[in-house]
This record gives sequence, structure tokens and C-alpha cells, in this order.
Amino acid sequence: MAEKLMGKDVAAAMKENLKAQVTEAKEKGFVPKLAIIRVGARPDDLYYEGGAKKTCESIGMDCQVFEYPENIEQESFEQAVKEVNARADVNGILMFSPLPKHLKESKIRELISPDKDVDSLTLGSAAKVFVGDKTGFAPCTPQAVMEILHHFSIPVQGRKAVVLGRSLVVGKPLAMLLLGENATVTVCHSKTQDLPGVCREADILIAAVGRAKMVKADYVKAGQVVIDVGINEDPDNPGKYCGDVNFAAVEPIVDKITPVPGGVGSVTTAVLCKHTVMACKMQNGF
Amino acid sequence: MAEKLMGKDVAAAMKENLKAQVTEAKEKGFVPKLAIIRVGARPDDLYYEGGAKKTCESIGMDCQVFEYPENIEQESFEQAVKEVNARADVNGILMFSPLPKHLKESKIRELISPDKDVDSLTLGSAAKVFVGDKTGFAPCTPQAVMEILHHFSIPVQGRKAVVLGRSLVVGKPLAMLLLGENATVTVCHSKTQDLPGVCREADILIAAVGRAKMVKADYVKAGQVVIDVGINEDPDNPGKYCGDVNFAAVEPIVDKITPVPGGVGSVTTAVLCKHTVMACKMQNGF
Repeated sequence: MAEKLMGKDVAAAMKENLKAQVTEAKEKGFVPKLAIIRVGARPDDLYYEGGAKKTCESIGMDCQVFEYPENIEQESFEQAVKEVNARADVNGILMFSPLPKHLKESKIRELISPDKDVDSLTLGSAAKVFVGDKTGFAPCTPQAVMEILHHFSIPVQGRKAVVLGRSLVVGKPLAMLLLGENATVTVCHSKTQDLPGVCREADILIAAVGRAKMVKADYVKAGQVVIDVGINEDPDNPGKYCGDVNFAAVEPIVDKITPVPGGVGSVTTAVLCKHTVMACKMQNGF
Repeated sequence: MAEKLMGKDVAAAMKENLKAQVTEAKEKGFVPKLAIIRVGARPDDLYYEGGAKKTCESIGMDCQVFEYPENIEQESFEQAVKEVNARADVNGILMFSPLPKHLKESKIRELISPDKDVDSLTLGSAAKVFVGDKTGFAPCTPQAVMEILHHFSIPVQGRKAVVLGRSLVVGKPLAMLLLGENATVTVCHSKTQDLPGVCREADILIAAVGRAKMVKADYVKAGQVVIDVGINEDPDNPGKYCGDVNFAAVEPIVDKITPVPGGVGSVTTAVLCKHTVMACKMQNGF
């Protein structure tokens, strides 16, 4: 039976650490603040927003939601984003995406300063993650994977990490983060030949494709660490969520595994706060 | 005995194609033009410059060298780069690097517009290569590797490509280009455990570490394609160059291999011209 890598343990440790950093910031006269920009009121966004607000509160940070109607026009919304971005009291910005289709999202994203771009929405942040510039913020989900590996002291250097999926939100930036810690990184995807065979070669297997339970027993071997980034509707349990990994099939084989729910997803808002605290420090030179 | 993948064959085919594109551009009233910015007169730079000028000439493109003294000051040089960049007749810019140490290179690089940045010196170009935006130019060397694979009809999709080296000039962008063509990409490096074993897994092995002859017989197996990006002083033949691959040891084992010299290095100036012609077309909307 595999060790379950619980996201809540990681988040709890991160929050303890962040609480101390927020106290330190406050002593210097700064309250780290996250701005959440939301257009409309999608249930997923509201759910994540609730979690983010709760995490901010628990560590003493400020969080302010800037909400706009779903039919807001491009020009007004651009103006609004510029205003939020220009606020001296806002250190980090999370903008929910995708935006409604009538808005030019690629243009709007770039209105966020890279130094406030705590969820890596801009090309400037992407470039920094690619080149390994530590002043750039990675998207919260791949960073959450790294936090889990660190928290549980899972060695990365020199080991084979296989990233299943190559999205800009998870797979590609995660490959760069792993490479930055000296893993040997393989990125595979739907076109990979013998995908199970490639995954079996991993010391650390990270599934980030968004396909329910696709990683089955033949994708894994004894001794592996499996990190499941997927959040999918469970085809076998209507109304429930499941990961990209068939947990029941894989868990008996591998050494360590993150559950879904309760794994990576439980760490992302702590990362968002960590990035915002880092942003506050960098912006104010301490 | 392996098939030798000769760079000159690739370059010749590219130049034929580019010649036709330059003729087409001229018919529309545009002469694609490359600007080369050089500070001082390092022999390596002069050698590459000579090759680039010759390639431009052979396809009917313009090439102008902007030369500055080695002791040029930051401010004057910034002004100079801005002026070159602002010229309407200049479509692509190559700036030799590294610049003398008293110049802030990272700042100067960003003065080049991404749409003229034909050798990928800016963060904007890096970001585009990372996200897979085809309007961004990759550095010439990794693009030359892709041109070789294409020219010799070496299948990439679904196959295992192992990139040995993770530099920003070759390894990382090459990984992104290979991923963009649906290869399963592994990036390995000095910290990789069992490096020979990882390399032996490749269908396509690309060596880009800058260590003379480090890829030996135990790094390869029958059937592989080996692309050697290294250009090193040959420890066994003073005054000669050699690659990262021990050619004598590897060539009898693998299926196809690029020689050094005569492989990847022979294709880079053709890529530079290709990018400049593309830039001319994009800038003028045809």
C-alpha cells in the first residue's frame, strides 16, 4: 500500500511559514494583498475564490475581489484591469480564466505587471519560468507539485521525472521547474508511442492530462512516486471528482501517491499566497 | 556504417527555397535585410559574420554590418541598437554575444523588437518558443537541428527524442521545438543518473553540451539518429574541431549521424536568412 501524500499537510506547513512572513511584512508596514479579478460568477471560480480568501485570511493577508459583469466591454475591462494593476496596495493579481469569449484575453493578460502576476498569466512570466529566472512566478498548480515533492523530501536531482501532459498551465512549466532542480525530465502526451512503457520508466510520474483515470496499473511500477494533477468528473461516481490516475489500480503498486481530491488541489491556494507574499517583498525590497 | 547527414545538403535546399522567396519579396518591392551588430572583432564573430554575409548574398538578400568599438559605452551602444532596430529597411537583427563585460547585455538584448529578433535574444522570443507561438523565432542552432530532421525526412512524431544539454541557446528551445512536433522529449544533463542508459533509449539523440567527444559507444544503440550540436577544440587534433560525439566510436553503431564540422553548423546561417525572410514577410503583411 502506497503512502498517501496529503495536500493538506503540505498546505498547513506552508501556511505556518507564510504566517510568520506576513507578520514580518506587517512589522515593516506592509500587508501583503491579493487582488482577485473575476468576470461573471462561474461556480468553479467562486469555489476557488472562496478557498483563496480563506487561505489569505488564515495567514493574515489581505484579499480583495474585483468583480465585473459578464457583459463588460473590452475597453472598460482593460481600464479596470489597469487600475487594479496600478494600485500600490495590490501585490499579486489572480484573474480567472477563460474570460467570456467577447473579450480579447491575450491582450488583457498582458496588462498585468509580471511582478504582480502570481499565477503566471503573462508571456513575461512564461519567459522567466522558461529561462529559470527565479523572479518569475510559475502557475500555481505546477508550483504546488514542487511544494509536495519538497514537503515530503522526495529527491528530485538526477532522477527521472515523467510529465504526462504538455499544457501551458501545468506540463510545460512543470518540466522547467523539475529541470531547474536537476531532474531528468521527459514530457509525454497523446502522441507518445508506448505511453505506459515511458511512464513506467519514471521515478516520479506526474499526470496532468485531464482524462479521468487514464493512468492504469500498466503505467506504473513499484517504487514510484505518482503525483496526480487531474481533476475530472468521475465517470463511475456521478457528482464526484477523480484524478487522471486510476487510484484503486495504481495505489497498491507504487510507493507514494497523491489522492484526488485532497492532493495537489489542496496546495494551490497556499502557493497563490506564497507568491503574493514574495511579490510584496520584492516590490518593497525586503 | 551510418548515413552521414550533411549540413550542406540541408543548407543548399533551404537556400533554393529562400531564393524564390526573396525574388517574390523583391517583386513586391521589399528586399529582406539582415543587420549584424558586432562590438569589437572577435575571430569567431568575424568567421560567422563572413558565413552569414555569403549566405545572404547567395540568395539575393541584403546584409549590413554595424560595427562598434570594444570600449563603446552603455548609453551610446543602447542608442545605436535602438537606431538599428528602428530602421524600416532592417527586417532581422543578429547581435553577437557575449558583449564586452562592461555592457549590460540583458538590458541591451531587450532593445531588439521580437519581430526582428531572428536569433532569439529577447525574453519575448523565448516566451513565444516556450508557448509554441509560431510568430516567435527560435535560436538558429536548435532550428537548424529541426531543419536537418525535416530535410532527411526523419520522423519525429511520437518518437523518443533525448536532448543532452539544457542551455537556453540550444537544449531548452530545442526541447520545445521537438515537443511542438509531437516528439516524446527527454532533457538530460550533467546531473542525470545513468546518462548513457538514458541516451540509449532515444530514437533521436541530440548532443548539445559542449564537451568534446563525451558521447561514446555506450551512449548509443543500433537504429538511432544522432545529431551533434557541439563545436569543441579537438583534444586529439590540435587546431581542429570536434563535436560532443566521439564520431569514430559512435558512427559504426548508429543509423544516421551528423558530422562535425559539416553538420548542424553548416545550416545555422541558412536558418538566420530564413528567419529574416519570414520577418520581412510578417512585417510587410505578405
